[in-house]
Amino acid sequence: MATCSADLASLLGPNATAAADYICNKFSDSSFAVDNTYLLFSAYLVFSMQLGFAMLCAGSVRAKNTMNIMLTNVLDAAAGGLFYYLFGFAFAFGSPSNGFIGRHYFGLRSIPSSSFDYSNFLYQWAFAIAAAGITSGSIAERTQFVSYLIYSSFLTGFVYPVVSHWFWASDGWASAFRTDNDFLFGSGVIDFAGSGVVHIVGGVAGLWGALIEGPRIGRFDHSGRSVALRGHSATLVVLGTFMLWFGWYGFNAGSFNKISSFYTSGNYYGQWSAVGRTAVTTTLAGCTAALTTLFGKRLLTGHWNVTDVCNGLLGGFAAITSGCSVVEPWAAIICGFVAALVLIGCNKLAEKVKFDDPLEAAQLHGGCGAWGVLFTGLFASEKYVREVYASRPVRYGLFMGGGGRLLAAQIIQILVIVGWVSATMGTLFYFLHKFGLLRISADDEMAGMDLTRHGGFAYIYHDEDDLHKNGTQMSKIESHPTPV
Amino acid sequence: MATCSADLASLLGPNATAAADYICNKFSDSSFAVDNTYLLFSAYLVFSMQLGFAMLCAGSVRAKNTMNIMLTNVLDAAAGGLFYYLFGFAFAFGSPSNGFIGRHYFGLRSIPSSSFDYSNFLYQWAFAIAAAGITSGSIAERTQFVSYLIYSSFLTGFVYPVVSHWFWASDGWASAFRTDNDFLFGSGVIDFAGSGVVHIVGGVAGLWGALIEGPRIGRFDHSGRSVALRGHSATLVVLGTFMLWFGWYGFNAGSFNKISSFYTSGNYYGQWSAVGRTAVTTTLAGCTAALTTLFGKRLLTGHWNVTDVCNGLLGGFAAITSGCSVVEPWAAIICGFVAALVLIGCNKLAEKVKFDDPLEAAQLHGGCGAWGVLFTGLFASEKYVREVYASRPVRYGLFMGGGGRLLAAQIIQILVIVGWVSATMGTLFYFLHKFGLLRISADDEMAGMDLTRHGGFAYIYHDEDDLHKNGTQMSKIESHPTPV
Amino acid sequence: MATCSADLASLLGPNATAAADYICNKFSDSSFAVDNTYLLFSAYLVFSMQLGFAMLCAGSVRAKNTMNIMLTNVLDAAAGGLFYYLFGFAFAFGSPSNGFIGRHYFGLRSIPSSSFDYSNFLYQWAFAIAAAGITSGSIAERTQFVSYLIYSSFLTGFVYPVVSHWFWASDGWASAFRTDNDFLFGSGVIDFAGSGVVHIVGGVAGLWGALIEGPRIGRFDHSGRSVALRGHSATLVVLGTFMLWFGWYGFNAGSFNKISSFYTSGNYYGQWSAVGRTAVTTTLAGCTAALTTLFGKRLLTGHWNVTDVCNGLLGGFAAITSGCSVVEPWAAIICGFVAALVLIGCNKLAEKVKFDDPLEAAQLHGGCGAWGVLFTGLFASEKYVREVYASRPVRYGLFMGGGGRLLAAQIIQILVIVGWVSATMGTLFYFLHKFGLLRISADDEMAGMDLTRHGGFAYIYHDEDDLHKNGTQMSKIESHPTPV
Repeated sequence: MATCSADLASLLGPNATAAADYICNKFSDSSFAVDNTYLLFSAYLVFSMQLGFAMLCAGSVRAKNTMNIMLTNVLDAAAGGLFYYLFGFAFAFGSPSNGFIGRHYFGLRSIPSSSFDYSNFLYQWAFAIAAAGITSGSIAERTQFVSYLIYSSFLTGFVYPVVSHWFWASDGWASAFRTDNDFLFGSGVIDFAGSGVVHIVGGVAGLWGALIEGPRIGRFDHSGRSVALRGHSATLVVLGTFMLWFGWYGFNAGSFNKISSFYTSGNYYGQWSAVGRTAVTTTLAGCTAALTTLFGKRLLTGHWNVTDVCNGLLGGFAAITSGCSVVEPWAAIICGFVAALVLIGCNKLAEKVKFDDPLEAAQLHGGCGAWGVLFTGLFASEKYVREVYASRPVRYGLFMGGGGRLLAAQIIQILVIVGWVSATMGTLFYFLHKFGLLRISADDEMAGMDLTRHGGFAYIYHDEDDLHKNGTQMSKIESHPTPV
Repeated sequence: MATCSADLASLLGPNATAAADYICNKFSDSSFAVDNTYLLFSAYLVFSMQLGFAMLCAGSVRAKNTMNIMLTNVLDAAAGGLFYYLFGFAFAFGSPSNGFIGRHYFGLRSIPSSSFDYSNFLYQWAFAIAAAGITSGSIAERTQFVSYLIYSSFLTGFVYPVVSHWFWASDGWASAFRTDNDFLFGSGVIDFAGSGVVHIVGGVAGLWGALIEGPRIGRFDHSGRSVALRGHSATLVVLGTFMLWFGWYGFNAGSFNKISSFYTSGNYYGQWSAVGRTAVTTTLAGCTAALTTLFGKRLLTGHWNVTDVCNGLLGGFAAITSGCSVVEPWAAIICGFVAALVLIGCNKLAEKVKFDDPLEAAQLHGGCGAWGVLFTGLFASEKYVREVYASRPVRYGLFMGGGGRLLAAQIIQILVIVGWVSATMGTLFYFLHKFGLLRISADDEMAGMDLTRHGGFAYIYHDEDDLHKNGTQMSKIESHPTPV
Repeated sequence: MATCSADLASLLGPNATAAADYICNKFSDSSFAVDNTYLLFSAYLVFSMQLGFAMLCAGSVRAKNTMNIMLTNVLDAAAGGLFYYLFGFAFAFGSPSNGFIGRHYFGLRSIPSSSFDYSNFLYQWAFAIAAAGITSGSIAERTQFVSYLIYSSFLTGFVYPVVSHWFWASDGWASAFRTDNDFLFGSGVIDFAGSGVVHIVGGVAGLWGALIEGPRIGRFDHSGRSVALRGHSATLVVLGTFMLWFGWYGFNAGSFNKISSFYTSGNYYGQWSAVGRTAVTTTLAGCTAALTTLFGKRLLTGHWNVTDVCNGLLGGFAAITSGCSVVEPWAAIICGFVAALVLIGCNKLAEKVKFDDPLEAAQLHGGCGAWGVLFTGLFASEKYVREVYASRPVRYGLFMGGGGRLLAAQIIQILVIVGWVSATMGTLFYFLHKFGLLRISADDEMAGMDLTRHGGFAYIYHDEDDLHKNGTQMSKIESHPTPV
């Protein structure tokens, strides 16, 4: 303080340039501190979604496969950390690039730079592992662990980073952040926090995995009727859902990367306000989807079902993720309402075609994600697009009077992602299947993977030592796992 | 940066006014960024309390009603989001008002303004849904779902917003933030984070609900003796309690709304320090209440009981919530100590009059909340009141030499809240009861609401498909839900 | 704003000193606001680790002792809050001191000061209770509750604060923050976030407790073979692990205390970047340790084990905690790799010598913590040490060309901590043992402490009232607790 005052006093008089530099440097420092605080804590929130996924998945499968699915969730984060450090971040954001894939920043070389700091890496890593988490839900309860290791590495280390390069890097071919003014349809794709980049990618990968593996044993009976294989703990489902909700504030409202940017200096309305608005649109879309699902399912099934409401809520979040920063709060309500209907529709369809996805992940992240991408093309507001995507020609939602260019770009995004993920992950799953690496044996499936591959069940029916002592019910241990 | 320097350099010489504007605008931007970061992350923390409530409630009820209570927790947040967006926030903070109820900002129209940003809405929404969460605990395990939908909407959308207007809005009739200097008793009520506004409101609503419904079947035996109906999972209770503790830092220390205000510029002591102090008083009150409960209950029951300790802890938090920002740390210890005794006393009384509240919510939030409001009137420190409530005449705690005006205002707060909530929620519960909408049938209660209303239990005793295959123990599924 | 502009305009012209003061004061305010926001939210994250510990511990013990271990976790936080307020913080950071123990700031007197604010206290309290949490894991399932109350108070209130004074206070005898330039080996110990101060302390205390008590009944059979006494819920283990991972970002990346310090003003590279780098090194060490454990254990046992992977992950975190701020990301990978091997080795050794630690806490926190302290002495980078420990002679890692002084200081740290904790906690456990206060009776151990000391089990096999009604399976309640 004393030093600062003395320095400044000596500067302010004769030498205005030096004084200006001094003051401006301090403002710059201050912005870096605030922006990094905002981005790092947002990254922590996004990371906490991995806990949410783990609990949601655990609760949605049967007790006998709990250890298996939780292990995949832990490893998504752990293996993802290494891969994303070694090459994932480089593929995604290494600039300059050829528009298809980045090729700098391997092993975080040259980080920090004027473009990226460690906080950006951490934030993007937390996104990358979310995509892998989605896919593991779709193919739960019947997939070999070795297959998981392969597809998960491929997805987090290559397939996903490439997609994020296309739409988020400053030289991705369809990005709205291009610096050379060569935008797809003069617009570029607006996928703010990744309904397409994260959710469609994870969902389509899961779709192919689940399709190629086929349904779990017993999921459809001999006459072809659908039989619910209920998850073992609704409490874990609710726990996971709330954690995901909590973390989604980091996912969507954190995607600005910086909070201290002003739109007009000295005004209360700046990027901090847009960050808050994004948290609000996210909330409203999820809430509306939850309520729509509650009453929709009540009409369809006669029950007030909490796990359905949780899935509906998450579908609303997956949908708003694309446009959260550029739509009005009232539009978010429309987004959530339609997302709930999309999810119900996709689930109906899945049942009809005997598609089995234990987490409804393909339907939820793929279906609602696709709706979200379209929604942005329909409802993005001129004012917000202008502010949030400042360097880009102003193309906004069709229904807001912005014409069809943005919508066209959004449609291209969906098609391209579906194509790319099908070509890469679909092919991979196909070959894993061909070589007999994909699906576990029927015996293993009946017994549960925890017993056959992971050294035991997640829970024990009775404390083992008591049983040793009493010499009773020994057999029960094998056959009666009890849930958490 | 370069731009900033150039701009400033050209300004600093001849034109001091423009230079000053430029610099001050930058400082203003910086404050907005920091304050919104602080408030948004605080809001996320408060939201995480909803997860805490869900787990606390789930663990405190029997397994057969777990889905039911968790659904109410999810819906408090979801329905609350819509209602608070449409009119709740307007009722609470729409200004100018008539002192009773606000009438601007419906659907967030005119937000952001110089008074409120989206972050304020998000923060207040998270408070509103907490109040509803309290009430659902009191009437758990025996309330019709349709009743829940009605009272919860009414509470979040109307009853609670009106109370928060009275005590927190800049023109609430008893607010300490009035701008016209017309303070109740020349003081206004100090209820910083809402021992009254949130906890007494939720607690009194629960009190009426539970009173009118009567105790759960089996809670008091034929001879009138109390029978503990233990919750199904102490682990979930502890999980929920820790999450609430975590979130309470957002609740109390976040209630300043801004962290960057200074008290004397250039000094290490500013609002950031008061925020930290508030986190400390909160911690100390909870810790003391937990320890007091541990030893108190040990004396009374002979056990070291973890769920009692959890409830004591939460009672301490509910009490300190009113005065957390204006009392010394040592006073917080007194606050927590008495809160634990108040809770033990209220529970004794409840048992005596055969009042059944599965979560002790009326006792905990109502009883300890009321103590907290009084405590502020007794122990608020002159210095802190002067700083935190700067624009108001300095009235502080009776025991700190501040006279009785603040205490009188605090007493009025308790009476008025009890009156208002009784008149609105009491009446509502009475009519729901009259029309047979409030309580479920005895058969349903014995069977559990999860089976009869929510499509099945939260847990299954054994994976269903295994049972189909083995053809054994089919009956067990119906009768032996096992806990998470 | 208007006021600020007017003030500044009147100052900028004739009176440069006053103008400089004005501007610098504003910058100072701004830094305080940002730094406190950063530190407080970091403190909340560290606190959330207590929830992580509680769930990890609960899942790792048998159902019959769940209430017991969770109560100790709640009380670590609660009793720790009071003790650390009354004297712990004073012992740790009261300055000036004699180098051995601090003696100011009792009951937070004179806080805030220019050195410490309430946020520092809160942050350090959350660290103190973590140490106690480690120890309670080692002696789980067989320790009298009264013993717990005694050792936990002694550890949090005295043993731990003294160690933190030595290595972290500005006048601790081995601290790298000394202000008098009298550094141990001209270097001082670098233990940034406490692999030594927190983890070795907790681990060695647990080692002595577990050694003196001896293994749980049934842990080694009559022929001396090791028998796994599996914890009752892998789900809780995973939940706890993810919460600890989440909180560890506060623990390590928060330990800078301030985020707004610049290294060169006006440059994107400042302390905010070092904070981000610390989060990255932490992530990479944990991830590598998890993967190493996965494949290592697969080779050794033939299973893909999720709870082992969780422990490996935590071992990686415990190790990187010492050097997280001063090593390169690639070095963090080495740190995690070796940490996993250390943990596997320690566990092998423990089995060989029939040492029983239900949480592997002594091995994990003691063993990996010690490796981490050495690792810093080997891999600390010159550049980062210079920046993070600016006021100290530049001594850095042996393998980085920095010579052996830092390594020597690090070795001293390990020896001194082991000595001090053995002398204090070892002696305490010995006397508790002598006086028959340490271990519960064999009957109590077989029945489980929840039943004998804590008023019942954490879960009930069947809702009690149903049983009353049916009059069946009454006996099952006593004998068949089921897990969460």
